[in-house]
This record gives sequence, structure tokens and C-alpha cells, in this order.
Amino acid sequence: MSTDHDWLTDPIPTVDAAALTSALARQEQLTKPPGSLGRLEALGATLAAMQKTQKPTLERVSIVVFAADHGVVAEGVSAYPQTVTAEMVRNFARGGAAISVLARQLGATLEIVNVGTRHPLEPLPGVLDRRIAAATRNFVNAAAMTPAQRDAALEAGRDSAERAAGTDTQLFIGGEMGIGNTTTAAALGCALLGCEATVLAGPGTGLDPAGVGHKAEVITCALQRHAVSGPLPALQRLGGFEIAALVGAYLRCAQLGIPVLVDGFITTVAALTALRLQPAVATWLFYSHRSAEPGHQRLLTALQAQPLLDLGLRLGEGSGAAVALPLLRAAVALHADMATFTQAGISSP
Amino acid sequence: MSTDHDWLTDPIPTVDAAALTSALARQEQLTKPPGSLGRLEALGATLAAMQKTQKPTLERVSIVVFAADHGVVAEGVSAYPQTVTAEMVRNFARGGAAISVLARQLGATLEIVNVGTRHPLEPLPGVLDRRIAAATRNFVNAAAMTPAQRDAALEAGRDSAERAAGTDTQLFIGGEMGIGNTTTAAALGCALLGCEATVLAGPGTGLDPAGVGHKAEVITCALQRHAVSGPLPALQRLGGFEIAALVGAYLRCAQLGIPVLVDGFITTVAALTALRLQPAVATWLFYSHRSAEPGHQRLLTALQAQPLLDLGLRLGEGSGAAVALPLLRAAVALHADMATFTQAGISSP
Repeated sequence: MSTDHDWLTDPIPTVDAAALTSALARQEQLTKPPGSLGRLEALGATLAAMQKTQKPTLERVSIVVFAADHGVVAEGVSAYPQTVTAEMVRNFARGGAAISVLARQLGATLEIVNVGTRHPLEPLPGVLDRRIAAATRNFVNAAAMTPAQRDAALEAGRDSAERAAGTDTQLFIGGEMGIGNTTTAAALGCALLGCEATVLAGPGTGLDPAGVGHKAEVITCALQRHAVSGPLPALQRLGGFEIAALVGAYLRCAQLGIPVLVDGFITTVAALTALRLQPAVATWLFYSHRSAEPGHQRLLTALQAQPLLDLGLRLGEGSGAAVALPLLRAAVALHADMATFTQAGISSP
Repeated sequence: MSTDHDWLTDPIPTVDAAALTSALARQEQLTKPPGSLGRLEALGATLAAMQKTQKPTLERVSIVVFAADHGVVAEGVSAYPQTVTAEMVRNFARGGAAISVLARQLGATLEIVNVGTRHPLEPLPGVLDRRIAAATRNFVNAAAMTPAQRDAALEAGRDSAERAAGTDTQLFIGGEMGIGNTTTAAALGCALLGCEATVLAGPGTGLDPAGVGHKAEVITCALQRHAVSGPLPALQRLGGFEIAALVGAYLRCAQLGIPVLVDGFITTVAALTALRLQPAVATWLFYSHRSAEPGHQRLLTALQAQPLLDLGLRLGEGSGAAVALPLLRAAVALHADMATFTQAGISSP
């Protein structure tokens, strides 16, 4: 387990400005009124510039779901028992979870990485064992992780991005599973944004208003105990292993020039953390949907992110990003394959 | 050319209530927090009940684009010359238009029906000649169509729905192409809703504010000349051939129990017209997106429709519906293929 931080500051490539200008100019020449494909035009042009081609595709998509347990569950912050995290990992492996179904439908690869379930799991197909500990510690009483554990989780995510790069992945989707992780994400998000617990504490998998109130109190206690705002200290003291892994994955994807489609509430907190480490990560992030978890909008506003979908999703697992993927695929197909006015011999306005 | 109206009142099937209740109950048993798939849950359940199966699919999708010209173009209401309608039909046939690209990507069939271009078109692959006249008449001066022409256009749409049914189509997407048809659609929509021209007149393919003002004046003149509010008289006096064909197609799809994914501004006016003929059409209509054409929201409000996407699209051709199709496909795949809590052995809250 290395604790070498050097990779965190590896440079992040920019998108070639001339390629983007050229791609945007192509959009003006395609057989449609200028602007009539709305947001799909800039998406298609941006992905074309990222791929340095006039014929971008998004055939090779890697979905990686990181799973871990959370010590803070001892405070009674979730509607579900902690055993569900491991049970859902088995469900991913058997192909019965939402993300399993969507990955099959989309022809995307699905990798599950266990970065810290409460109990060890038997070997499962498609599930990688990178278990760092038997859950994080309860951050009401202690730092959630040691610095070494945080670094191991970041590296687990980094390694997933590198495996994706090894298969020439054109888009990366990170997902998460971890009972209690909306509490963790809200705590980490509040530390980074400097806001009150009530701003980001929400019902998660289904708390009633009293449950949400209790969750906010738990987060307030944690924020008082751990008065941190820097991304690495906040991640260590208030984060979760799967969230840290997502931070590492997003950061490495950006360093490798692989676009990322961010999912919902928890992954957006990971994106925020990665952006605090290196603002240039923003270049490579697309936002898929606005979660029904109320705090998500606050995070999106902080990131000036405009997600593609608003369908009341709040499942996690990367499912919202998977549902939105076909919109990016439509954008690249239109960019690549539509005829220009000249090619089609069509009159201009 | 029959002018027999009898088919317009053919009965429309309902969705079996027990099948829908059972499908919604299945959604509660799938391995996710109840409600966490947001709007995809009701979509999946509804499509399952429509198909009378626990394993719905949307593999067979028919896209039909109706093309026609509009006499009102003589009033200078479009940013493009009228020749573009026929030029775009050729572009559809050669596979270079947005809807051509999307249909290929989605594995959907694409049929183009010429119901009234200004000039006859040479035979083109994938283009059906059902040309009713050399454009409608200018409705500022006269009724856009004769009753017989309107009925022929309705029947051209009806026949497309029947062809789709003949190939066991699971979802129908109607599209349109016709320079000037946002003016026509706005006039017809205003007649049906009883609203002022300025409520529905918008920039269309790209008018400037002065152009939009002129367009509203043209529509106001037409509404004063043709004081009608019933769907068949309004369609005849203020409609377009492609809009009437869409009305016939939507109506017949509903009669045949084929769900329809409505596209944007013009198709929504066709949907409104079909609903005025038979309110039960509503059962079979799904709405794909909110168009950037400002009047679309007013139409959606009148229909109590909540579209799936809001991406600033305003192209027509059925393109917005095609872009939204994968959301319905995700919904049915999740409904069909996710494991239940019992199957997966997962703990309940």
C-alpha cells in the first residue's frame, strides 16, 4: 500500500482549442438550422475534439462501481441494514442490479471493486477485491480513515481508470454502493462547501423527515469534530472508501484524457473533491442527471454543472449516468454522420 | 381517395388495469429503494402493461416522417426557402439528415411519406409518394385544404400506422418536415386552444424578433378569417398535410394499441388535434422533450404532458423523440431484467 501522493498532481491535458473550433464549425455546416440540436451540438463537438477526430464514437464505455461500508451507519442514518452493501455486490455479480441490466443493454463493461465491505466477500465474478478495511470508522467519534487508507482508496480508483485506459475506453462511468453513503457524501460536501448539514442532508434511500433531521444532527456533530476544508484532510476524516476511490478514478481519467460521465449525489461530491485537488479535472467531466436527493442541486450549482436529465432518479450505482449515456452517443453519431449543406445540396437561409 | 370518416371514431383500447397494478407492484419488489428509479419506474410498468408482459421490450420501433409544403410561406414566415422541404426529403433518402443518423443508430425503421411537396419528387428509396397537392393553399386567403384533401392526409397517416402494426411495431415515432410548418402548427394550435397568435408564434428555424412579430400578424389574420375551433374544421382550414397525416397516424396507433413517442412543437399540435377527436388517444402518447420553440410549453401545459428531455432541441423530423427513445428502452429493460429482493436474497428496510 503506497502512500505516495505524487500522482495526484500529474498534469491534466486540455482539449485542443483548434480541434474544438473546427468541430463547432462543422456543427454549423450540418443539415439543420444552426443551434436546432440544442445541447447535443456542443456535446458532439466537444467529444469530437477530445477524440481528435471528425468521427467520434462512444462504443467502448467502462462502468466501475466501488462498494464500501460506513462506520457512521452505527448512528442510525440509513433506512437499510448494513448487510445490504455486500448483498448488493452479489446482486451486481449475478447481473440482477439496475446497473447490471443497463451495462448489458448499453454494451458497456461493468467492473465492481470492493474497497471496504464490513465482512470479506467470497470470490465473485466481475468483483475485484481491493478491500481496505471492514468499513470506515464512525466519523462522529474518529477520523473515517487513516491517511494511508485514504491513499489506498484513491489508488484503487486510479487503478480502475488505468485499466479502463488499457482497453481504450472512450468514456468512464463511476458508480457507488454503500449503505450510509449519502450521510458520508453530505458530510464531505458540507466540509468542502462550508455549508450547514441541513443543506446537503436528505432522505437518501428513504428516511422520513425525522430521520433526515437526525442525519443532519449526526453530520453537524461530525463537522464540529473535524474542522477541515482541504480536500485530502476532509476526504480522510469524513469520506468513504468508495468516494475516495471515485475521486482517484475521476482524477486519473482526467490525467489520461478520458471523459467521465458523473452520476448523482455521491459521485458529484467525489467530483467536487477531485476538482478541489485539481480544477482542470472539470474539462473531462460531463454531468448526467439531477438526482431527487435535494442536496444535489446545491452541489451542481457549486460546480456550475448543468446535467442532461432530470427524471427523479436517486439510485446510485452509476445508474443515472448509464441512463444518460445514449444522449452522448446520439450527440457523437449526429456530429460524425450527418451530411453538410454542401454534401446534401441544400439551400441556405 | 376515400372521404369516409368512420375510422376516426373507431374505439381506442384501454391499458388493462390489473396488468398495470401488477407491473407497478413488481417495481416495488425490484432490488432498489422504492421510487429510486424516478419516472423510469412508471414508464417501465406502463409499457409492460401495454405489452401485457412482465418482459417488455422496445426492439421494433417505426419512425415515419411526413413531408409537405405550406402555402402560407408566401407571406414570408420562414428563414428558409420552400425548396428546402424537397431537398431535405432527398437528404432523408440518402441517410444524411439527423433523423436518418438516429434511426440507424437506434435500429429503428425509417419511412418518409411525401404528402405534398411543392413539386413532385423523383422516386427515392424509402420515400413513399402520397402527395395530395402541390402544397396547401395560403390560409391567409383561403382554407388550407379541401375537406377531401384533409381526409386524404389523415388517411396517409392512418396507413403508416397500419403498416407499422403489420411489422409488430412496439413504438411509433412520427416526424415532420415542411418549410413554414411552425406557422401552420401555431395557427392550428391557437384555434384549438383559443389563444392569441403571440402565444404560439416563435422563431421556428431562426426568425429574428421582427420576423416572429410578422409571423404572429399572419397567424392573427388567418385566425380572424377562419373562426373555427373544432378539430376537423381547424385542421382543414389552418393545418398542413404533414400535420394532418400525423393526426391520422397518432389516432390509428391509439386505436391499434401502439404507444407513440411524440416529438416537439409541431407533432404536439398534431397530438392535441388527435386528442380533440378522441380524448382516449392520451393513453397511448408519451412526450419526449420540451422544444426550444417557446410555444411548446403552452401546448404541453394544455395536455398536462411532462416530457422526458429538455435539451434545447428544435429540429423536428422526429429527432427529439428518437433522442429520447433510449430512456424508454432503459425503463423496459430495468422492468424486465432486474432481480427482485427475494430472488437476490437482499434484506428489506
